[in-house]
Amino acid sequence: MFDKEIYVKRRQELKERVGSGMILLLGNEEVGCNYEDNTYPYRQDSTFLYYFGLPFAGLNAIIDVDNNREIIFGDELTIDHIVWMGTQPTLHEKAHRVGVDTVLPSAELRPTLDKARAAGQKVHYLPVYRPEHSIKLFNLLDVRPGTEQPSVDLIRAVVDMRNHKAPEEIKEIERACDVTADMHIEAMKQLRPGMHEYELASIIQGVAKSNDCPLSFPIICTINGQTLHNHYHGNLIKPGDMVLIDAGAETQMGYAGDMSSTICVDKTFTPRQKTIYDIQVASHLAAVDMLRPGVPFVDVYEKSAEVICDALKGLGIMKGDPKEAVKAGAHAMFFPCGLGHMMGLDVHDMENLGEVYVGYDGKPKSTQFGRKSLRLGRPLEEGFVLTIEPGVYFIPELIDLWKGEGRFKDFINYEELDKWRDFGGIRNEEDYLITKDGARRLGKKIPLTTEEVEALR
Amino acid sequence: MFDKEIYVKRRQELKERVGSGMILLLGNEEVGCNYEDNTYPYRQDSTFLYYFGLPFAGLNAIIDVDNNREIIFGDELTIDHIVWMGTQPTLHEKAHRVGVDTVLPSAELRPTLDKARAAGQKVHYLPVYRPEHSIKLFNLLDVRPGTEQPSVDLIRAVVDMRNHKAPEEIKEIERACDVTADMHIEAMKQLRPGMHEYELASIIQGVAKSNDCPLSFPIICTINGQTLHNHYHGNLIKPGDMVLIDAGAETQMGYAGDMSSTICVDKTFTPRQKTIYDIQVASHLAAVDMLRPGVPFVDVYEKSAEVICDALKGLGIMKGDPKEAVKAGAHAMFFPCGLGHMMGLDVHDMENLGEVYVGYDGKPKSTQFGRKSLRLGRPLEEGFVLTIEPGVYFIPELIDLWKGEGRFKDFINYEELDKWRDFGGIRNEEDYLITKDGARRLGKKIPLTTEEVEALR
Repeated sequence: MFDKEIYVKRRQELKERVGSGMILLLGNEEVGCNYEDNTYPYRQDSTFLYYFGLPFAGLNAIIDVDNNREIIFGDELTIDHIVWMGTQPTLHEKAHRVGVDTVLPSAELRPTLDKARAAGQKVHYLPVYRPEHSIKLFNLLDVRPGTEQPSVDLIRAVVDMRNHKAPEEIKEIERACDVTADMHIEAMKQLRPGMHEYELASIIQGVAKSNDCPLSFPIICTINGQTLHNHYHGNLIKPGDMVLIDAGAETQMGYAGDMSSTICVDKTFTPRQKTIYDIQVASHLAAVDMLRPGVPFVDVYEKSAEVICDALKGLGIMKGDPKEAVKAGAHAMFFPCGLGHMMGLDVHDMENLGEVYVGYDGKPKSTQFGRKSLRLGRPLEEGFVLTIEPGVYFIPELIDLWKGEGRFKDFINYEELDKWRDFGGIRNEEDYLITKDGARRLGKKIPLTTEEVEALR
Repeated sequence: MFDKEIYVKRRQELKERVGSGMILLLGNEEVGCNYEDNTYPYRQDSTFLYYFGLPFAGLNAIIDVDNNREIIFGDELTIDHIVWMGTQPTLHEKAHRVGVDTVLPSAELRPTLDKARAAGQKVHYLPVYRPEHSIKLFNLLDVRPGTEQPSVDLIRAVVDMRNHKAPEEIKEIERACDVTADMHIEAMKQLRPGMHEYELASIIQGVAKSNDCPLSFPIICTINGQTLHNHYHGNLIKPGDMVLIDAGAETQMGYAGDMSSTICVDKTFTPRQKTIYDIQVASHLAAVDMLRPGVPFVDVYEKSAEVICDALKGLGIMKGDPKEAVKAGAHAMFFPCGLGHMMGLDVHDMENLGEVYVGYDGKPKSTQFGRKSLRLGRPLEEGFVLTIEPGVYFIPELIDLWKGEGRFKDFINYEELDKWRDFGGIRNEEDYLITKDGARRLGKKIPLTTEEVEALR
């Protein structure tokens, strides 16, 4: 955890930004997998971590803006806990480490909120993303599950603070990125035809775990790179295949890394694979080149899509004006996802608080297929940390659907496209910090070009 | 998944056992870790798996006993799902594989239940163990979270069926046990002083993952073996330490293995370590020797505890009559947990349905410290699968507490005990099937004696 002054300062700033009322921050509980006590690895809520730093279940907190006080609610351990889970500092000691002097039993939270509401204080809370949050709000504030009304003032304040990464956060993110890079590099070294995907995934996971890092999200490790979030690991990896890996580590403090790579199973890529791979790299580099404060990320996205359309036009797969194709949404046949997303305490940072606030500063997102998956569109600012991950995908189901509908016939040459329908998909991904006048790649470099990948095979 | 006839037969038997009403089985949903779409590894509810076999989120099912029909409720995939998650069989195709012909959209579940209740049918449901279950029951049956009233008839029927393992289940459990044994054997081979616990845990996890197996529960891998469920992996492993490992694999079908071992970090155990280790083994073997149909497991537990007390008396740590010590509960100073538990689709099988039903056939459990943690007490029956895992632990916090209270002074020699307070803890664990006239160890053998462990160091 950071020095206590950091948490004190963050809470002070939050109070000033929200202005009035009582802020209720729910900590996360343990989650039962197939029964209550067989728990998934514990993960504290990221906003709770940001303001209170304590990675333990059973805690909730209030920041009482009107009365300038902060209280952590939780219960001390019993001898049964100590026998089963080991000795731990008391809750008071833990709270002290993050600069909080008042700790009350969990049972005091409801009365505290009741008093605040009786006194006319507004209770601010954030959007729910686990059913446990809905039940807590039901029990604490009588809010019926499904009818929660999160505080937009609180969301905006939290998003603006967490979007701008402080130096101590960037250091943590870089550590996550270094381990993340090692996960990819090790996979590139160890991949052999005849492995199953789960064997390679095991190697990737092992690099994270042997650095004492959880995964920041479930590993993608697939010979079917055209499926964007493919978590199936059962396929045999054959000569001639490519393996797409999207994986990242999280530090013990909760900061994420997130990188992707596409690896040839043979020692080298085939000319056909290299053709598409080079298009991805060109798109990637064009995007990176534009990163600086003031540039709307939606412009970076469009540029990266235009590069892909222009190159596919060169192959006869697309036609017409690339800029027009992107405006119309025809590029989404090959690039149906976003270009990148904010990254921090969450790998898709603050996705639970609403992408519209995090990535669009409250302005509406496009509903166009493809573009609607762009999680980030706003002008960039110093301190933002984001991913760059364009991809080129050939998705048979989408080809058949659009071809059947006769969609974008002015931009897509379906006859030529059919020759590539079983190609698969390629994605590479790096993480960047927006600096005062540009951007800086975070963490160790992973191979990006075909030559760089082949050097490790 | 098993042949469809197995699921058809299981559901038929369940209908006969429950007799009347409508059985509602809730499938598990994806669980968000730090936001909704960053999900933990998906795990279907075990009872849903047992009767419907489908390991997918978004499903619920009814077994209408009165009208002899079975319906799976869920929604078909859209093109967005296919682009992001890959192509899949339709829900109708999936249902057909487990012998269910009727599939309805999720939105039809509430009206179906409404009709049943209007017609006077009792709706049977099982205990909740995830907040999502409470919210589902609230939305489907207007049951306020926290006031659920599970059907005892349904619990008893499910427990009795799942407690008796069929040959096809035993085969799956043996596969889980084989991988589990390999996890322990690999750890014994690779453990070196200077490693951190997380590096060893990574090796153990890697064996599971490289066999395409999830973990059946979070790995325990600790130099502090006296802490029973210690999931911290941050310590440096030093010469002279022992490492206690409790870890298991789960098959893709959901069946668990669960074994423990205690490994010397040096090439051999010290004489002091061997002294306590031998006591654990003697207790373990005495328990195994008693396993056969008709024997109450509480008797096996008492025998294993008596062996420990008797041996500790030989060391001067305990005194008085071992049988009396166990009756009084003094053994719980060293053996504060149970001897074993049922194992199947859950590592603690059906813990969510209530240990009193699973392990005590509906009879009340003891509330005595130590004995209350015994998950299984009932007479054994052919087809039960259970773990044997006595332990000898020296827990400084418990020693100080009981010594301060002057507890069990007739049975515990606190002066002698103080010389062992920093010893740590030892546990070994194997999995057994109760056969017609005895018991059979499941899976590959892992080293049990000090000589067997040392042979791998």
